[in-house]
Amino acid sequence: MSGRGRLIAVEGIDGCGKSTQARRLADVLGARRTSEPGSTPLGAELRRLVLGADLPPITARAEALLMAADRAQHVEDELRPWLEAGQWVVTERFSGSTLAYQGYGRGLDLPGLERLVTWAAGGLEPDLTVLLDVPVELAASRRAGQRPDRLEAQGADFHARVRAGYLALAGAAPGRWAVVEGAGEVEAVAEAVLAVVAARLGPLPVRAP
Amino acid sequence: MSGRGRLIAVEGIDGCGKSTQARRLADVLGARRTSEPGSTPLGAELRRLVLGADLPPITARAEALLMAADRAQHVEDELRPWLEAGQWVVTERFSGSTLAYQGYGRGLDLPGLERLVTWAAGGLEPDLTVLLDVPVELAASRRAGQRPDRLEAQGADFHARVRAGYLALAGAAPGRWAVVEGAGEVEAVAEAVLAVVAARLGPLPVRAP
Repeated sequence: MSGRGRLIAVEGIDGCGKSTQARRLADVLGARRTSEPGSTPLGAELRRLVLGADLPPITARAEALLMAADRAQHVEDELRPWLEAGQWVVTERFSGSTLAYQGYGRGLDLPGLERLVTWAAGGLEPDLTVLLDVPVELAASRRAGQRPDRLEAQGADFHARVRAGYLALAGAAPGRWAVVEGAGEVEAVAEAVLAVVAARLGPLPVRAP
Repeated sequence: MSGRGRLIAVEGIDGCGKSTQARRLADVLGARRTSEPGSTPLGAELRRLVLGADLPPITARAEALLMAADRAQHVEDELRPWLEAGQWVVTERFSGSTLAYQGYGRGLDLPGLERLVTWAAGGLEPDLTVLLDVPVELAASRRAGQRPDRLEAQGADFHARVRAGYLALAGAAPGRWAVVEGAGEVEAVAEAVLAVVAARLGPLPVRAP
């Protein structure tokens, strides 16, 4: 692995604690931290189009393709150069999000989506995807008071399908995914995330304090 | 074919005469006329992102995915409803453009692109694609004086690869493509286009005058 860093994706439904946990993990590892969609200038425009409320409804296929375009730019401009420079990278969302949201949530065919996300990322896959699993009701209560974006504004059924989809993805690829119970205290969840990262990808670049 | 119209795509490099010929063909057929990218509100935003000069360079994969997203929205919001209502439709550009520009022009892998465009269009294919073939130099001279967009601004080598790519696509699927020499007078080209459409898809919905 010399000369190549590691890519860790943090996934889960909105309100599961991804941002908080990705930040803590990146801090402990001394890793780059990034997120999708919206990390590149193109991505920021796409994020506005997909998640904003300015346009008439976007079809499920177009939504998946826009998320894939955001990822393609993210991979080539940021993730691949960082990894090739030997850096560890923590990304909030990656291909798993497209499979969970546009596949399980929107109902698009999974084999087609899997080919799409693989092609968009030029074959790049996370070394580990950490799923922060929380009940839909808890995630919704954590989001309460925030103005929802176009995906967050979908109903509880949608988020339940996305959650179940994430668990199905993790269950189908246990060597590449790890499920961490995200309902507890931030400290406890952070310790569980770090433990699973160390177990799967250790030795870590910087030891936990 | 009762209850379903026909989809005719007009393809070719910038400056080949697509707009003029698509307009004339649609007029004669009493067909809907549309174009890619940019036909839907989402598409107009994507067209600005892809062809405008506001952003840093867009990767080839992201460019292909954005064109595919434009097409997915175009198909579901406009093309499919029109065709299902029995209308004939003439579109300036369709999947052939992505294969020619992002495949042959940008150098992306064709099998992956073919799966992408098929998935994006939900399997919709034109009943006939008419390629207006013109020499690169003639197309460039016709574009002279116009402010070029991001793709038009590519060099002569790029446009030569795109032209050769179009000819390869047409040669590989002679039952679905027709090549019309586009270098002559507008009237003569229009007659040749109408003749090939009649031969392949006749009887036509409205007879040529």
